[in-house]
Amino acid sequence: MQEEQKTPSTTPIAQLGEFGLIDHLTKNFPPQDNRIIKGIGDDCAVIETGSDTHYELVTTDILAEGIHFDLAYTPLKHLGYKSVVVNLSDIYAMNGTPKYITVSVAISSKYTVEAMEEFYTGMYLACQNYGVEMIGGDTTSSLKGLFVSITAIGEVEKDKVVYRNGAKLNDLICVSGDLGAAFMGLQLLEREKQIFKEHPGVQPDLENQHYILGRQLKPEARKDIIKLLAEKGVQPTAMMDISDGLSSELTHICRQSICGARVYEEKIPIHSDTYEMAVKMKIDTITAYMNGGEDYELLFTIKQEDFEKVKDLEDISVIGHITDPSLGLRLVSKQGSEVDIAAAGWNSFTETK
Amino acid sequence: MQEEQKTPSTTPIAQLGEFGLIDHLTKNFPPQDNRIIKGIGDDCAVIETGSDTHYELVTTDILAEGIHFDLAYTPLKHLGYKSVVVNLSDIYAMNGTPKYITVSVAISSKYTVEAMEEFYTGMYLACQNYGVEMIGGDTTSSLKGLFVSITAIGEVEKDKVVYRNGAKLNDLICVSGDLGAAFMGLQLLEREKQIFKEHPGVQPDLENQHYILGRQLKPEARKDIIKLLAEKGVQPTAMMDISDGLSSELTHICRQSICGARVYEEKIPIHSDTYEMAVKMKIDTITAYMNGGEDYELLFTIKQEDFEKVKDLEDISVIGHITDPSLGLRLVSKQGSEVDIAAAGWNSFTETK
Repeated sequence: MQEEQKTPSTTPIAQLGEFGLIDHLTKNFPPQDNRIIKGIGDDCAVIETGSDTHYELVTTDILAEGIHFDLAYTPLKHLGYKSVVVNLSDIYAMNGTPKYITVSVAISSKYTVEAMEEFYTGMYLACQNYGVEMIGGDTTSSLKGLFVSITAIGEVEKDKVVYRNGAKLNDLICVSGDLGAAFMGLQLLEREKQIFKEHPGVQPDLENQHYILGRQLKPEARKDIIKLLAEKGVQPTAMMDISDGLSSELTHICRQSICGARVYEEKIPIHSDTYEMAVKMKIDTITAYMNGGEDYELLFTIKQEDFEKVKDLEDISVIGHITDPSLGLRLVSKQGSEVDIAAAGWNSFTETK
Repeated sequence: MQEEQKTPSTTPIAQLGEFGLIDHLTKNFPPQDNRIIKGIGDDCAVIETGSDTHYELVTTDILAEGIHFDLAYTPLKHLGYKSVVVNLSDIYAMNGTPKYITVSVAISSKYTVEAMEEFYTGMYLACQNYGVEMIGGDTTSSLKGLFVSITAIGEVEKDKVVYRNGAKLNDLICVSGDLGAAFMGLQLLEREKQIFKEHPGVQPDLENQHYILGRQLKPEARKDIIKLLAEKGVQPTAMMDISDGLSSELTHICRQSICGARVYEEKIPIHSDTYEMAVKMKIDTITAYMNGGEDYELLFTIKQEDFEKVKDLEDISVIGHITDPSLGLRLVSKQGSEVDIAAAGWNSFTETK
């Protein structure tokens, strides 16, 4: 009888981080089944189901209370919506269409049925908005905290699937929408939470910051961008969604495509509200978009010849280009100086939000 | 800013229980997509993928520390194995073949990489034994406790799929293997844990009870039974796996098939070790198999004309027959008296193990 698991040696998980841990645990088990077109290591697994035209896409995420969300300022309806959206975003990042989700929830029995209704209402709203159906799930009690794990299943035309490893020398690096807003929304919520904790009588002052708060609490997946690219006849060469911050996602694409990247600070799309809040809170906007994450925008590369097709699209910004791997990942500042981009994306094992 | 979610009224979740909660939360959202052959409410969702011959099966389970398992006596390798098996069992319960799993894990950062390796080794061993591949996953830290959510994807021949709702009047009710052993294994582990807590110096006495301990700590899914039934040309009319206890599973089949059932105590298969431990611990064997659960055996119904094909199969027991719904669910005791079977299966919201 043992009170705790005994193990021969003791490497803390934080030392490897989430991606290091997954790499480490799965490295000895490459896919054996030739119907697995892509296994672990991209936004989704890609499966041959026997359809002539489509592959199946499968992705899973888990969100943990106190790590990914704080119920002090996250309405359960928004949390349900976001839980679904972050999974759908992974399907779009393969250039696919989400179809179904399954939902696992562990909740402390202190929650009421009405609270769970709020949560499910948010999930169903997201399903409705994105044309997705909930086909299964499991609920259980937890000793402490709320955990949500969602698996999304989708499909992609076989000749349209986009991986992280397809970026080629001189391809253009693009992002959709704007970056850093979700991070600044989080900073604002955290600031007000601290004030509330220290002075419980003080009403929070969220300064009418609807944009950045909305980006944090109720993000959307860029279904519209996938549709737009298809309409314009642009097939990205590599793509992923920005969940952990631009630096982390660029690092994934460059590692898997075996290339370098050069991005220009002045080209990074920042919303004016994001910029103003960053100045006000004395946070560098580079930190917000490089390391912040949770914008759920798409980061993708396109061939140079496709530049004409995207250059006038309001919601797509060309932020740099792919270079030789020997040149590494570089950010060119507005002043023209260059710095290395380190993959300082968010790591749930070393930081908490 | 609110420290806790405010909700207009406060129905405790325990009042509905797990199945009541799921019914309640999903009742207003029947499937819209005609490719969903079966949505929420069976062991798996059944999906039309465009294959001429097969449907896809999808199922999800979540296991929570302190609710579904106790790390004081559960080796992480066994836990990994069991986490996979309980999902595969749901695929077999549709008469299908599992193909892929995705794994979400939330763990406190106090766990070591080596501990996670143990857990993954168990999961991979199960994958290997059942011919299944891990195609994706997500890991995160948790503030407290270990949570595992697995989604299994499989396939079933279109004319072989078995639901819970197909049982017909006079069909024979069958179970595979034997029942109640996993429950008695748990009682033994819990007894020794209590002794250890009160007298930390005392070594646990597990009495060489390999059978019942193995059934609790490292259950198997009945892949072999599915194969055997196919070989014998037996197509079950209804089927599910026994995860929550015979009474709960029989209730599901009878509700969904709109029928009653009559089972005979003397026909219920009990292993001699289960029986002896029940006597020793003064636990009624009926409690063990009716309410205990976690045996992951298959409960299924067959047409009367198939009786000849199963009657000599060692690992299949005919325990009763389907009756008119007006007759309810009845257990006929060894002495010939009859009692109602109440669906007293395990409910994570009202009991802890």
